[in-house]
Amino acid sequence: MASVSIDEAMRRAIGLAARGLGTTSPNPVVGCVLLDPAGEVVGEGFHAYAGGPHAEIVALAQAGERARGGTAVVTLEPCNHTGRTGPCTSALIQAGVARVVLAVTDPNPVAAGGAATLRAAGIEVVTGVRADEAEAGNIAWLHAVRHGRPFVIWKYAATLDGRSAAADGTSMWITSEAARTDVHALRATVDAVVVGVGTVLADDPRLTARNLRDGSLAIRQPLRVVVDSAGRTPVGARVRDGAARTWVATAAEVGADPDGRVDLTALLDLLHARGVRAVLLEGGPQLAGAFLAAGLVDRVIGYLAPKLLGAGPAALGDAGVWTIGDVIDLDITDVTRVGPDLRITGLPRSRKG
Amino acid sequence: MASVSIDEAMRRAIGLAARGLGTTSPNPVVGCVLLDPAGEVVGEGFHAYAGGPHAEIVALAQAGERARGGTAVVTLEPCNHTGRTGPCTSALIQAGVARVVLAVTDPNPVAAGGAATLRAAGIEVVTGVRADEAEAGNIAWLHAVRHGRPFVIWKYAATLDGRSAAADGTSMWITSEAARTDVHALRATVDAVVVGVGTVLADDPRLTARNLRDGSLAIRQPLRVVVDSAGRTPVGARVRDGAARTWVATAAEVGADPDGRVDLTALLDLLHARGVRAVLLEGGPQLAGAFLAAGLVDRVIGYLAPKLLGAGPAALGDAGVWTIGDVIDLDITDVTRVGPDLRITGLPRSRKG
Ligand SMILES: NC(=O)c1ccc[n+]([C@@H]2O[C@H](COP(=O)([O-])OP(=O)(O)OC[C@H]3O[C@@H](n4cnc5c(N)ncnc54)[C@H](OP(=O)(O)O)[C@@H]3O)[C@@H](O)[C@H]2O)c1
Ligand SMILES: NC(=O)c1ccc[n+]([C@@H]2O[C@H](COP(=O)([O-])OP(=O)(O)OC[C@H]3O[C@@H](n4cnc5c(N)ncnc54)[C@H](OP(=O)(O)O)[C@@H]3O)[C@@H](O)[C@H]2O)c1
Repeated sequence: MASVSIDEAMRRAIGLAARGLGTTSPNPVVGCVLLDPAGEVVGEGFHAYAGGPHAEIVALAQAGERARGGTAVVTLEPCNHTGRTGPCTSALIQAGVARVVLAVTDPNPVAAGGAATLRAAGIEVVTGVRADEAEAGNIAWLHAVRHGRPFVIWKYAATLDGRSAAADGTSMWITSEAARTDVHALRATVDAVVVGVGTVLADDPRLTARNLRDGSLAIRQPLRVVVDSAGRTPVGARVRDGAARTWVATAAEVGADPDGRVDLTALLDLLHARGVRAVLLEGGPQLAGAFLAAGLVDRVIGYLAPKLLGAGPAALGDAGVWTIGDVIDLDITDVTRVGPDLRITGLPRSRKG
Repeated sequence: MASVSIDEAMRRAIGLAARGLGTTSPNPVVGCVLLDPAGEVVGEGFHAYAGGPHAEIVALAQAGERARGGTAVVTLEPCNHTGRTGPCTSALIQAGVARVVLAVTDPNPVAAGGAATLRAAGIEVVTGVRADEAEAGNIAWLHAVRHGRPFVIWKYAATLDGRSAAADGTSMWITSEAARTDVHALRATVDAVVVGVGTVLADDPRLTARNLRDGSLAIRQPLRVVVDSAGRTPVGARVRDGAARTWVATAAEVGADPDGRVDLTALLDLLHARGVRAVLLEGGPQLAGAFLAAGLVDRVIGYLAPKLLGAGPAALGDAGVWTIGDVIDLDITDVTRVGPDLRITGLPRSRKG
């Protein structure tokens, strides 16, 4: 393999890390590129699934003796504790690595201290290389460590005038196949897909991650969650097929809010306890409004179709905003054409008051 | 001046033409660049206002004797008739121009035939250079010649979920100052700004083109039109201030549709007869829906603010769409960030059925 710069190696490591999205929770995604003393790539690895080997271990196994005196480029501070696998710091020390370059330090108190251990063993440690990019790639896990609850992505589809169906209720299809394929890819990167019972009753969706052309299921499926205060999800609903695990989250099991509906903060706590780090909230309008009103949405992804309806249900229902001063402001981070549609990504700013 | 290619000269001519937008109706915008035999720019001109000299005349006056044996690069086929000014073909022939390069041929039966006249006089004529770009720059005028009615641009402002105000009616401001400045620039390029009486009663807008910082008015103001079946526009409404001409278009004056409201096709006919070629429809939702339902919108410009409301009036009202098969499809031609907002431009596809 050819010699690469540290920056380029980190770019590759971040790309490797992303391959673990959707299968590593409750662990982070991590990528590692090992360079020999001449800067040649001698090993690459990523953390592929919870319980599986860490990125550094995979890369070290590949590199063998060629790692000695070289550099480990890794997206997250190497772990310092013996979890399901031994600490990565020990493996790096034993392999004789001379330098460790990392993007993001580990905020997890249990695993942290890796850099200090490495330095104590005489290894040079460089931090912060491509930190923002690596942080973005690990956002759900970092968010969960920092806030103790999963990262929630609200996804919706609408016309340019904000409708999610026509006046008669028909909506097949507002957005294009390209946009729907994009959503299935998104589902495959999260741990749970959440909808309100209203959506189940109206649309009877499958909520699986699958190939839209042939219907084949992705190897790993996110947990399907129906927020259903009184347990109205029909026995024959498609979310109850065997294609993936399903949790009908009732107020009796989760706890109720003052209106007797499922308490959404408690819901996220229980999902976190189950190991869920990334949640895709797929609506409908009422549940999305309730999540937004509670300040529980961390990212918004809107698929806007180049269409106008002028009537029909709105994509977003009551979100606790009565007057313009209370509007929910987003910072737009991305606008991309997906087929004929626009995908707009934004981060809600912390609400006033 | 330096020597330029024909293509570059046409690019400049199209840019010059655009400076006339908003002041030439019922005439087209036209730009002209004159090159001497060596390809040096020796004259430039544009048609600045109806009744003023044509682009070719301005450029020829600048070039004088240096035009002899040279090339006239002009965005539209030179006129062949004696209107308020003499025919441009005669002026080009008299100036001894050897070649005329034009982008778009004149579809106007009264003025057409320019190319044939030039050829008969021994001048080489090349057509179709940067034709699409020149056509886009003259779209309102070309549309009006072809269809006998003005080109209608519907502009709206909304949140990402399609609301134009909060639940309590407040809407100051959904979009940013940058977007509002953009709208004022747009107003300065059209001949008439149209709103429904509902908007006048609710918002009492000025509808002038002005500098938002100091309030100073643009030199030329579009005609302000209030679509007001029964003449409910208050005597003290701001649209009635002296800042620009205003027409309160009532059903009595224009004609009524079967519901007794202003007949929109007749309205456009009357505007066309008044010399209006480009119309900016600024809402509200009900009037915009009626224009869309009648197939009278030729371009849509939506300013989407990165905000969510979840409640409040929709940006678009009933547009005659009941079921998803009748949805109004747009071809998106442009997506641009304007300050924090998104400006989305689209062309409605001809409606089914
Ligand atoms: N455009 C899109 O992206 C999109 C996405 C999904 C759905 N949809 C459309 O949305 C429509 C369904 O709308 P919807 O608003 O009724 O569906 P919804 O938001 O999926 O479900 C709302 C229901 O969730 C339950 N719920 C439980 N706890 C809640 C809480 N804390 N806050 C709010 N709701 C809670 C409530 O029923 P209980 O109290 O009985 O539990 C409530 O009626 C369908 O027509 C579907 O096509 C559109
Ligand atoms: N987001 C935006 O871009 C935007 C832009 C403008 C306004 N707005 C908001 O829109 C709200 C006003 O809404 P609106 O729908 O009442 O206002 P509108 O569309 O401006 O006015 C509607 C009125 O126009 C008259 N009209 C006459 N002929 C018509 C025809 N052929 N078809 C339809 N209407 C005809 C009707 O009253 P008569 O029958 O009495 O003539 C009708 O009530 C305001 O709150 C304003 O803030 C938003």
